[in-house]
Amino acid sequence: MFITRRIEFSASHVCANPALPDEENRRLFGDAANPYGHGHNYVVEVTLEGDPDPVSGMVLDLKELKAILNAQVVDSFDHRFLNKEVPPFDRTIPTVENIAIEIWNRIEPSLSRPPAKLHSVRVYETPNLYVDYFGDAR
Amino acid sequence: MFITRRIEFSASHVCANPALPDEENRRLFGDAANPYGHGHNYVVEVTLEGDPDPVSGMVLDLKELKAILNAQVVDSFDHRFLNKEVPPFDRTIPTVENIAIEIWNRIEPSLSRPPAKLHSVRVYETPNLYVDYFGDAR
Amino acid sequence: MFITRRIEFSASHVCANPALPDEENRRLFGDAANPYGHGHNYVVEVTLEGDPDPVSGMVLDLKELKAILNAQVVDSFDHRFLNKEVPPFDRTIPTVENIAIEIWNRIEPSLSRPPAKLHSVRVYETPNLYVDYFGDAR
Amino acid sequence: MFITRRIEFSASHVCANPALPDEENRRLFGDAANPYGHGHNYVVEVTLEGDPDPVSGMVLDLKELKAILNAQVVDSFDHRFLNKEVPPFDRTIPTVENIAIEIWNRIEPSLSRPPAKLHSVRVYETPNLYVDYFGDAR
Amino acid sequence: MFITRRIEFSASHVCANPALPDEENRRLFGDAANPYGHGHNYVVEVTLEGDPDPVSGMVLDLKELKAILNAQVVDSFDHRFLNKEVPPFDRTIPTVENIAIEIWNRIEPSLSRPPAKLHSVRVYETPNLYVDYFGDAR
Amino acid sequence: MFITRRIEFSASHVCANPALPDEENRRLFGDAANPYGHGHNYVVEVTLEGDPDPVSGMVLDLKELKAILNAQVVDSFDHRFLNKEVPPFDRTIPTVENIAIEIWNRIEPSLSRPPAKLHSVRVYETPNLYVDYFGDAR
Repeated sequence: MFITRRIEFSASHVCANPALPDEENRRLFGDAANPYGHGHNYVVEVTLEGDPDPVSGMVLDLKELKAILNAQVVDSFDHRFLNKEVPPFDRTIPTVENIAIEIWNRIEPSLSRPPAKLHSVRVYETPNLYVDYFGDAR
Repeated sequence: MFITRRIEFSASHVCANPALPDEENRRLFGDAANPYGHGHNYVVEVTLEGDPDPVSGMVLDLKELKAILNAQVVDSFDHRFLNKEVPPFDRTIPTVENIAIEIWNRIEPSLSRPPAKLHSVRVYETPNLYVDYFGDAR
Repeated sequence: MFITRRIEFSASHVCANPALPDEENRRLFGDAANPYGHGHNYVVEVTLEGDPDPVSGMVLDLKELKAILNAQVVDSFDHRFLNKEVPPFDRTIPTVENIAIEIWNRIEPSLSRPPAKLHSVRVYETPNLYVDYFGDAR
Repeated sequence: MFITRRIEFSASHVCANPALPDEENRRLFGDAANPYGHGHNYVVEVTLEGDPDPVSGMVLDLKELKAILNAQVVDSFDHRFLNKEVPPFDRTIPTVENIAIEIWNRIEPSLSRPPAKLHSVRVYETPNLYVDYFGDAR
Repeated sequence: MFITRRIEFSASHVCANPALPDEENRRLFGDAANPYGHGHNYVVEVTLEGDPDPVSGMVLDLKELKAILNAQVVDSFDHRFLNKEVPPFDRTIPTVENIAIEIWNRIEPSLSRPPAKLHSVRVYETPNLYVDYFGDAR
Repeated sequence: MFITRRIEFSASHVCANPALPDEENRRLFGDAANPYGHGHNYVVEVTLEGDPDPVSGMVLDLKELKAILNAQVVDSFDHRFLNKEVPPFDRTIPTVENIAIEIWNRIEPSLSRPPAKLHSVRVYETPNLYVDYFGDAR
């Protein structure tokens, strides 16, 4: 069984590889390479897999999940310019793909313990573009 | 191929295990353990797997699917206090996990017959919290 | 200029007038009269009217607005059975109309002071049914 | 890793098999068999699987994906009566199932090349009814 | 106080004035002038004004409102080609503006009687385009 | 009659008054004063008032409206850091209130000509916070 919680943060980013010339970044990323950055209301859906506990009827303690997501994701990402304020995005391009991988890496150690394990991280950059990441194991 | 139909019902519930002391229920479920109950506009997505019929181009008869979902789910759950009016929630805590399992158990016998079979039941308790259940076989 | 903030709470209610016989309540309210109650994810939009302050560029302090809405509405209504736990709904039928009026009455004293004043309270009972209340003055 | 882009088009269709008598089409499809047709705001989600490129941090060039989807889907389907103007729906019933299969067939050759491959096509006929198609291989 | 109910129907239409040459219709309406028509999932919000009744706490009987909207709008418009099957759209162009006016004209006689009166009809052609009509009196 | 078109842009901003000390900006704007900025998927709804033209059945030419909104708003605001790249936000704090006023000022000259006139500009900063601006005349 999967259980999914949705959180949101507002952040800005630049999509450009500092090792590439400007015109190449412009060709690859279009307006997303504008050097001053731009932003999004990111929506994150974190999905865990597990069986409901016979005593509580819940896969895991939702209050604890919320606390972990706030501490590991919202508090670090919300109202930030990702490239300048949130490592590793000073050296990793904060594409929506890399944001999903980074969120997985931050929360997986706290969430993948019995009886539940992290199944996927979905990140919406806009309502029309999103990614799903399942960890290296897939 | 999967085909998914979405239905809704409005119900109330209490999340508490009668075998536990009040303070333990409060610790486990927070405000959701308030004894008078509270409610949600539940959204259910039922997904079937099958191949489109060569004559009709449809996986299954959607009018029949709608009739089954209304008879088995909406008519029983809508405008009800689950713990008091909808078995087995008099003895099973109506967490969103257990609601999904109960909906699966109610509709699977009617839906899993050739050419289609029930693939999953998703239940949204709020837009920010939902579960997916795939039956025991997964 | 109007500024609107949206909040949510999950509650249950019964729509029935204790002074009427059961069959009359059933005729007036249908399934909403079921005595055990049922629930909704209520969405509230609170709209204030004012001019942006020349120094801050804001109509009012949004952090303060949020604190007022949480204290006056969410903390009292969320995860409650309105008829039994939230006065005046022990004696006033908690229709969506009366919920909007009660929210207006609770927040208007804190919000209608210079430079802003409360313009309207919208309450969605479901995505398909909502009311707008503008106070007595309209 | 999956990346999904959402597009929309507005079209009309009739769900009826020309080889069947009218009353049989009416029984199978209900009002959807009305001969003049009716329409929907279709929403399509196209999901690709791949790994982010180490240089760009992207699974694939999103500008190119958008160009392919516009050329292969939106330009052909938008503002059209599918049965009369969009082959093969002159001879294949444009159920939502068959629309998903046709979109897969149109875009798969352009999209399934290294480093990405087409994973699924989801088509919403309404917010309450959608299908997922994964190609023949599943 | 306003109370609003939302309904939906799926229909197709052509936006073209039969008295104009084809190129002029094409210039005015673009692809919406395609002669075979195209379609939308129309969403209609009907808003009434009134005061809650002291006995019922409701502005009007919602079951009766629903019955009127189904009889006057959904049953006539749903799954229809408006230009060919729904008068007056055989002679009035079914732009979203004219659809809103026609819905007003159909429901106003049934709805504007004490204690409530029809305030407005909103019609969404897509999530990105909608109109509000308030009757001639405004 | 009102007709409303919805557009979107993604931008970043800082909410801080350069004439104030940092701690005062922090007190007024909270995290929104972070100097590197953060961003949103802004949604703008532009509403015009007019009567449908007897020949076209439309209040105004929607293709022309779309072209004006793209040229005056989307092309200037999308993928930009408002404070640094979009005047007057180098000297006016880009609160959601001031963004709505600026959009009004940019589009009103092109839109308020017979037979239509600009009625309002709504700007959503997030789904939970939005403003409506009606021009000075209100």
